[in-house]
Amino acid sequence: MNKPDPLQNVRVVLVCTSHPGNIGAAARAMKTMGLETLYLVRPRRFPDSEATAMASAAVDVLERARLCDTLDEALEGTVLAAGLTARRRDLAPRLLTPRAAAPELLGAAQAGPVAVVFGNEANGLTSEELQRCQIVVHIPGNPRYNSLNLGAAVQVMCYELRMAIPELACVEVPAFEPARHEDVEQFYAHLERTLLAVGFLDPRQPKRLMQRLRRLFARARLEKEEVNILRGILKAVGGE
Amino acid sequence: MNKPDPLQNVRVVLVCTSHPGNIGAAARAMKTMGLETLYLVRPRRFPDSEATAMASAAVDVLERARLCDTLDEALEGTVLAAGLTARRRDLAPRLLTPRAAAPELLGAAQAGPVAVVFGNEANGLTSEELQRCQIVVHIPGNPRYNSLNLGAAVQVMCYELRMAIPELACVEVPAFEPARHEDVEQFYAHLERTLLAVGFLDPRQPKRLMQRLRRLFARARLEKEEVNILRGILKAVGGE
Repeated sequence: MNKPDPLQNVRVVLVCTSHPGNIGAAARAMKTMGLETLYLVRPRRFPDSEATAMASAAVDVLERARLCDTLDEALEGTVLAAGLTARRRDLAPRLLTPRAAAPELLGAAQAGPVAVVFGNEANGLTSEELQRCQIVVHIPGNPRYNSLNLGAAVQVMCYELRMAIPELACVEVPAFEPARHEDVEQFYAHLERTLLAVGFLDPRQPKRLMQRLRRLFARARLEKEEVNILRGILKAVGGE
Repeated sequence: MNKPDPLQNVRVVLVCTSHPGNIGAAARAMKTMGLETLYLVRPRRFPDSEATAMASAAVDVLERARLCDTLDEALEGTVLAAGLTARRRDLAPRLLTPRAAAPELLGAAQAGPVAVVFGNEANGLTSEELQRCQIVVHIPGNPRYNSLNLGAAVQVMCYELRMAIPELACVEVPAFEPARHEDVEQFYAHLERTLLAVGFLDPRQPKRLMQRLRRLFARARLEKEEVNILRGILKAVGGE
């Protein structure tokens, strides 16, 4: 009863890539985010040992990469294509951030394959290539230096695609049992008795010591096991 | 009257980096997102020509990088540190995504320097190193292959830091003048007359042709100049 994974319907298209190392880095970036389909339009060198080295454990993505002569060939069958650009384009159909584009791409990926298209390292996509895309994506950055490495740009875009799927966008939190209210209150009482016993808390001038300590432990959201440890410590220093 | 830039208060700390190329890639990733402060704890080789090559136009970040013997030295003065990990850590103080961690880091950066800490390529940060961080960050990814390249991980984290600053997280949309309601309505009227004149629209069986066309152009959110172009076309095909 697994739902179809929309990331499987996203192809990454690299157009006229100059450095094979960047193709490998892109494959690795894709695989870390769960994407697998790579199209290469007229790469300068491919296959290449540098690509393989940079792909690390994502060589399978490289091996299944499809070589194309034209961008049209790489976009065949797609229902939506997003072209990445480092420059502001006056005639962009719609200019979006990766964060805004990702849900749209994934929505369309329910209906058919979609593509994210990256141009050559030095020149990016040409106007003609961008005009084959319905969406133009710009990664917000330092206006004085906005030239992301190709592999890094692929990583950001694939990361946003994954983050746009709520069930994949979280990290598993270790499942420790949280402390219950009464356990925490008993700890506070134990702590107060101990601080009185060792003379740190002056009952005639308590100031706001217990409030400060409560605030600290409240922020920490104590776990059951931690309360046991803390009470063990209190016992060890002589607090009954 | 510029507000202080919180990104200037974020230092990137690379611990025991093996490959100098990754130090350069990290510097480039930082600069593209507006970060400038790099600390290197016991890098295997630095300075190095590979680092310089991979830094591209971010060599200034490398040149100002500070070399440290220990992580404590690199964290001196910081008020909050986030350590990146590719593994789920049972004893993580708090495990967050980059997206959840970024606003917290920037909030703390108002009070003092903060750090994002990246471990060695093969082994990541040790438990001892992670325990010096108040936040542990995990980049959500493919559970079967979650090994981001170091430079790519730095790119994702720096990107999220920039995206957490609302005024930096958008792309400038080209300022074309939108068409006004009455201009668009006059275009529709002109279009309808033309379609009638050329015999494409049958007045006895109009079906929903005009509705379909309105729907199309509504989605496009016509610009003033585009209305002029479209009406020019209608005129050229003989529609008055």
